[in-house]
Amino acid sequence: MSKFENYNEWYLDMVEKAKLSDKRYPIKGMNVWTPYGWKIMRFVDTYLREELDGTDHDEVCFPLFIPETEFKKEKDHIKGFDSEVFWVTKAGNNELDVPLVVRPTSETAMYPMFSLWIRSHQDLPLKVYQIVNTFRYETKQTRPFMRVREIHFFESHTCHDTEEDAQCQVEEDLEIVKRLMHRLCLPYFLLKRTDWDKFPGAHYTVGIDTVMPNHRTLQLGSVHHYRTNFSKPYNITYEDENGDHPYVHQTTYGMSERLLGAIISVHGDDSGLILPPDVAPFQVVIIPILSKKNADEVTKACVAVKEKLASAGFRVKLDDRDDRPGSKFFDWEIKGVPLRFEIGGRDIENGVVTFARRDNGEKGTIALDSLIPGTKLILDQIADSLRAKAWEFQKGAVKAIESMDEIPKDETKGASETNIKEDSLDLRVYSFGWCGCEECGHKFEDEHDIKILGTPYLPGDEYDGKCIVCGKPTKTKAYAARTM
Amino acid sequence: MSKFENYNEWYLDMVEKAKLSDKRYPIKGMNVWTPYGWKIMRFVDTYLREELDGTDHDEVCFPLFIPETEFKKEKDHIKGFDSEVFWVTKAGNNELDVPLVVRPTSETAMYPMFSLWIRSHQDLPLKVYQIVNTFRYETKQTRPFMRVREIHFFESHTCHDTEEDAQCQVEEDLEIVKRLMHRLCLPYFLLKRTDWDKFPGAHYTVGIDTVMPNHRTLQLGSVHHYRTNFSKPYNITYEDENGDHPYVHQTTYGMSERLLGAIISVHGDDSGLILPPDVAPFQVVIIPILSKKNADEVTKACVAVKEKLASAGFRVKLDDRDDRPGSKFFDWEIKGVPLRFEIGGRDIENGVVTFARRDNGEKGTIALDSLIPGTKLILDQIADSLRAKAWEFQKGAVKAIESMDEIPKDETKGASETNIKEDSLDLRVYSFGWCGCEECGHKFEDEHDIKILGTPYLPGDEYDGKCIVCGKPTKTKAYAARTM
Repeated sequence: MSKFENYNEWYLDMVEKAKLSDKRYPIKGMNVWTPYGWKIMRFVDTYLREELDGTDHDEVCFPLFIPETEFKKEKDHIKGFDSEVFWVTKAGNNELDVPLVVRPTSETAMYPMFSLWIRSHQDLPLKVYQIVNTFRYETKQTRPFMRVREIHFFESHTCHDTEEDAQCQVEEDLEIVKRLMHRLCLPYFLLKRTDWDKFPGAHYTVGIDTVMPNHRTLQLGSVHHYRTNFSKPYNITYEDENGDHPYVHQTTYGMSERLLGAIISVHGDDSGLILPPDVAPFQVVIIPILSKKNADEVTKACVAVKEKLASAGFRVKLDDRDDRPGSKFFDWEIKGVPLRFEIGGRDIENGVVTFARRDNGEKGTIALDSLIPGTKLILDQIADSLRAKAWEFQKGAVKAIESMDEIPKDETKGASETNIKEDSLDLRVYSFGWCGCEECGHKFEDEHDIKILGTPYLPGDEYDGKCIVCGKPTKTKAYAARTM
Repeated sequence: MSKFENYNEWYLDMVEKAKLSDKRYPIKGMNVWTPYGWKIMRFVDTYLREELDGTDHDEVCFPLFIPETEFKKEKDHIKGFDSEVFWVTKAGNNELDVPLVVRPTSETAMYPMFSLWIRSHQDLPLKVYQIVNTFRYETKQTRPFMRVREIHFFESHTCHDTEEDAQCQVEEDLEIVKRLMHRLCLPYFLLKRTDWDKFPGAHYTVGIDTVMPNHRTLQLGSVHHYRTNFSKPYNITYEDENGDHPYVHQTTYGMSERLLGAIISVHGDDSGLILPPDVAPFQVVIIPILSKKNADEVTKACVAVKEKLASAGFRVKLDDRDDRPGSKFFDWEIKGVPLRFEIGGRDIENGVVTFARRDNGEKGTIALDSLIPGTKLILDQIADSLRAKAWEFQKGAVKAIESMDEIPKDETKGASETNIKEDSLDLRVYSFGWCGCEECGHKFEDEHDIKILGTPYLPGDEYDGKCIVCGKPTKTKAYAARTM
């Protein structure tokens, strides 16, 4: 199965063969997290917790259900979610007086409580987060980790006394994004979404996007500045030093299990997953190369290496199944274990282990004397190399265009999600000048069945030329792509 | 507020004052886990994960919703839960063709998948667990952590080739219970539930109960042996070595946030919580005792002690707020921090820190030279002492009776949950002889508005005498109590 020739099928094949989740559960788009997939996701959760705890966020857990009355307080927000929430209308044998929404996101669960929690400026900033599942009634075609109806995700919510302080929070969030994505070896764009595409109720939204092997982009998460758009309907005020009661400024930041979808897609190859060492359930797999006469000795050496690595904190698996080494290689390649050790009679004689890197197939030996630093070095090299390769692919996916004619037309119009042609790499992520007006934006999107992802959030990625639609001079660059 | 004179009010007061959860959320029985309560619960989760991972269970995460069609396959099970589940009947603007149950427990979510996962005896035993929230439409009065509608809980589910192997799993589960309860310093009974009180669908149920300050018992969790009661309707079979396809034998084990309710109730006193060191978000709080002339020196000493403790792995808080020490003592007593350090000028001169134990108020000093072992020793002593005191209370709560007349009658009949009299310690946990027949059991329960909790699961707690109801000779002891 070829990742670049037929990405969609390759992806589903990987999820199934590496046993990351099981989509045979009898509800469409609600999949079972099987042990291997869940372990990877839990590493991501652990790193997020470290980051958020380390930046003075408190972990909380809010109820899953939200009364319809609370859910409907912010008008744009409810408009954005109305068609995609699940409703609990019955409990036991009773119809409920007030139907309950199953959380699609937690603004409307949290903010009535924030209004009780925050009294004075001393209660600010308030910074909380939770790692929970959220629920959206997807009507489009579902895809594991990318478009599901039960979504494993984290959301942080903050309240501040000033817009500036809320702005600083956005910057802190983006630093967290940077550190997390470094661990996952994933490249990304930070793009300020267009006004017609921002989060329902937000002042502005920064999308975190990465490029899939089919050149479509996948939104991995987002950071929102709400200003006082929610604090007004939910009446979240604080007493300031003058005795006044202004509304708080709010932000949120969230990322989801799509991170796992990106790890699979960005790093994997035609032989299976390739996991970044920080999220690999096993970083090293040891395969004994036995012959009849040395079986005991080799087994002993393998156990010793395993124990040494494990006690140094590496996650290591000794595959001592009664099976051919080649068949074991195959299994662990699918599972994406970054580093394979082979230990046979000759390795023992030479005082080494033979290693093979999953990412590039490179083989070599590590002297037993330097097992720990040697292993660490190679795992670091694997991470560096995955990261560099992924950033290179993302850069290569972007095409700067001056005219809309440069976008291949036949293939974009009317392409459906199951159409293999749409996976053609001829389609790219496009960058171009945009005057910023909504009319030009819509015209661009409509003509090409393509989405404007937004404009660079960070400085250093400007443009100097003309709007690709109306021709007015502009200094603003925009990115557009088809999305997953 | 007095724990023993008015337990119910004391309990609610503790939950609120220590900020463990917020019950002002606008759905009855669905409370917000605020940071301090959630931290304690997460320690419990962490220890459970360690135990389950260490006994070859795999963590999974199953979808929240269960199609009605799957939910209704096991007849006793659905009868047991029908009146207390939440139903999702609508998504977006569509009525669902098949209504979805919000998981009250996950047998009916997992077992259709187990039927796909298990092919041969090599797939057995299958041992999985998940830590999730479950949902029950409680109609009784709710109480934080004890009787709520969204329940944080863990559930392990196992499949075995033989009834004996499933029985070994029950024994392994009970060993886990033992180790976990040791950490939480909680005493407990293991009681085989009566047939009319076992889990819906179970072959038998072992309840894990502990005694509350009002002498009511609280079920903290349970272990169930299902035999093939679920594998038949869900068609979970395996191919054995003869090519036959017998049904698997199953067990489950679950415990919930009630553990936190028990920690609060069993250990707390009239000044606040008393947390076992293993689950205390802060094990040590340091309070500087400042005077004008030594403020800098004391602060420096406090920071040094804090850093030394933190780098040795203790969870430590330096309370450097601008407030009186007495007011800080008060705050941290409510929060149940097991050990308080006070550091002032005289302590520095003497090269010591002054400590105060939260559990018994005992004060003393630890030489700075032996700060780490000294702290560890006292925390261990606190845990030992909490454990001993709790077991002593549980033992003292049990009264062996020979006749039903020994149970005070006026107070039990018609007592309501809000009736203060029902908190009277005159009522006890009763042990007595029981012939084991259902008729005698019901007669006992009806006469006293009291529940037979079951018979001792472990050997060593037998009886030799007569059934308290019918007078037939019996060797079986039963326990009965009113339950929370």
